[in-house]
Amino acid sequence: MESFRLNKTIATRVVQGHPWIYRNELPKLPLDFPPGELVELADPKGRFIAIGYCNPKSVISVRILSREREKIDGDFFLRKIAGADAYRKRFYAGEESYRVVYSEADLLPGLIVDRYGSYIVIQVLTAGMERHTESILAAIESLFSPQAIVARNDIPSRALEGFPVERKVLSGKLEPPVVILKNGLAFEIDLLEGQKTGFFLDQSENYLQLEGLVAGGEVLDTFCYTGGWSVHAARFGAKAVIGIDASEGALDLARRNAARNGFESRCRFEAGNVFDLLKAQEGEGREYDCIILDPPSFVKRRKEIENAVRGYKEINLRAMKLLRPGGFLLTCSCSYHLSEGRFREILLDAARDVGRTLRLVTLRSQAKDHPVLLSLPETEYLKCIVLQVLSP
Amino acid sequence: MESFRLNKTIATRVVQGHPWIYRNELPKLPLDFPPGELVELADPKGRFIAIGYCNPKSVISVRILSREREKIDGDFFLRKIAGADAYRKRFYAGEESYRVVYSEADLLPGLIVDRYGSYIVIQVLTAGMERHTESILAAIESLFSPQAIVARNDIPSRALEGFPVERKVLSGKLEPPVVILKNGLAFEIDLLEGQKTGFFLDQSENYLQLEGLVAGGEVLDTFCYTGGWSVHAARFGAKAVIGIDASEGALDLARRNAARNGFESRCRFEAGNVFDLLKAQEGEGREYDCIILDPPSFVKRRKEIENAVRGYKEINLRAMKLLRPGGFLLTCSCSYHLSEGRFREILLDAARDVGRTLRLVTLRSQAKDHPVLLSLPETEYLKCIVLQVLSP
Repeated sequence: MESFRLNKTIATRVVQGHPWIYRNELPKLPLDFPPGELVELADPKGRFIAIGYCNPKSVISVRILSREREKIDGDFFLRKIAGADAYRKRFYAGEESYRVVYSEADLLPGLIVDRYGSYIVIQVLTAGMERHTESILAAIESLFSPQAIVARNDIPSRALEGFPVERKVLSGKLEPPVVILKNGLAFEIDLLEGQKTGFFLDQSENYLQLEGLVAGGEVLDTFCYTGGWSVHAARFGAKAVIGIDASEGALDLARRNAARNGFESRCRFEAGNVFDLLKAQEGEGREYDCIILDPPSFVKRRKEIENAVRGYKEINLRAMKLLRPGGFLLTCSCSYHLSEGRFREILLDAARDVGRTLRLVTLRSQAKDHPVLLSLPETEYLKCIVLQVLSP
Repeated sequence: MESFRLNKTIATRVVQGHPWIYRNELPKLPLDFPPGELVELADPKGRFIAIGYCNPKSVISVRILSREREKIDGDFFLRKIAGADAYRKRFYAGEESYRVVYSEADLLPGLIVDRYGSYIVIQVLTAGMERHTESILAAIESLFSPQAIVARNDIPSRALEGFPVERKVLSGKLEPPVVILKNGLAFEIDLLEGQKTGFFLDQSENYLQLEGLVAGGEVLDTFCYTGGWSVHAARFGAKAVIGIDASEGALDLARRNAARNGFESRCRFEAGNVFDLLKAQEGEGREYDCIILDPPSFVKRRKEIENAVRGYKEINLRAMKLLRPGGFLLTCSCSYHLSEGRFREILLDAARDVGRTLRLVTLRSQAKDHPVLLSLPETEYLKCIVLQVLSP
């Protein structure tokens, strides 16, 4: 195994818990260095620090797999995935659908494993993890005996790593419709075509925040996708829910999800552009008791941040205007590049512009099956904030 | 009623939701201006903005009560307190103990009302609120028909406002022991002598975060006070809980609280200095599965912040060393002057120093009965963070 000696600063950073080495922090790698190969990292005196995998093509050249001298083999992956699953079982006893492995935050960089009842969906994001697919699949078979394992390797960054961008059934048989239970509610999900791996597992605990906000009220669920928020709003007693999304396919699924839980008479789904709709409804004098804003990320890259800020401010400002006094705004951002602090500034700024007094009811992040590696801010991305409009 | 014209900048700030006017932002007040008197605020053109109460002795000279021209009378307080109670009932259906009014965040600046079953405890922090005590007590009688109303007016800032610092029963009869139910557990509390108004209501939702962290494990509860965390740890299955506090009186109550819930065989309470104890236990090689750090505020004033940072870092660093791999640190700060961002930096810094990899399981703030006024950062103070130690 190749061994890299790090300089003192970088060695210290790694010893202190950071899991990445950037390209400019390594000696020049030979052009034929095989992407994904295991390497050892050492301090300036040559003492062992960690094992990682190396991809000379990637800006993050090494991702650390272990801080012990150990074999990275089938047993390693079985222990790691079993450990990650045990962590989830602490918090989700009895749940059948949750994220089992969340990449760096489970010390398995480049690997996502989601469990949806008897199905498993994996994402392999890096060359270094791709090499161990066989071990990973064996561990999954042994731990979950799934009906099928699906690969959602349709992340564009895989192309940069030199791998096919694809969705496929790796083993077993996928028999739609796939219906999962989350928070006691049934959701049909599309493992091959749906957003992410089929369901927004990261919002699963936040959905419960609607309890207490919506009973007897009118709810507007924007960017409603397949109805995660809408169905929960109906569950917590909303009198009428309107879900808006640009995708007819998502809306069909949302309608089926509402019906599947017996809420079809209280949930209505309409295709539309959220920006246009919020503007139009203001003109019509529409009002709601609760508005949900859970948009897709407006900012995928740091340089897009200023445009994104304008977008977040616009929808939040418009939603604030459409709320009855005492009404609630549940507003999210899933952009890593938009910090919680900045997001809160946008909300305060919007509140000032509309001249309404708001209070913060609660602030949440990702569900516990998406933990955050303290030393790696990149693992924390979701903000879910509930505000109440106090004054006219 | 006296009316103050504000300059454009300050008028705009108030219109946009900020609830305070500072002394240097008002024209010079006559020396005999009566503390707590109602005043009107107007914009530079003399147009009405808000009603507040004014205390020329206070740095915050005016606190806003209403943004409408309305009478500040018994009916006003009845409506406001009833509205605040209705907000709590959204989230705490069936609960009998919660904060009913949280000062500025309920648009009743200077007033705290806590409900403990059939008892009500109030804190009147300002001259302006003191003037309306009769209306407030009448509203409380009408809404809750309490067995007794206790005043915990033992906040030093009352002396600055020119009022007695005192604890007393204002009406009805206080018959100890007062026992409340919180999260299904029984707690005896001391309404006259206890910390705050008797119980840390702001932590009531955070106590539930122990679920999943402690089953079968050994728990160290530092600054344990009357056992709020310890009793919850036992409830969620801890094998053994050791609670440490400097106050023998608090420990007596903690022991009774453990016994009251049937956990006396699993909870042990010892008097001690937490800093010394953590140091000593490291020397002895003690280890825990979960350590709780919920210290009193180390920083009451901004200028004490650097000392406080050292204190927070020391206890967190020592606790991190005492945890078994996979163990959990539940760590709090109730200092407004220590921001969430700074607190997280301290934790990351401590983690780096001990060379352990930690992940963030969850991050919480105050319970929902302590909402935050978006325009007033001073209403947000509590941080409760759960970390897991991943590596050796």
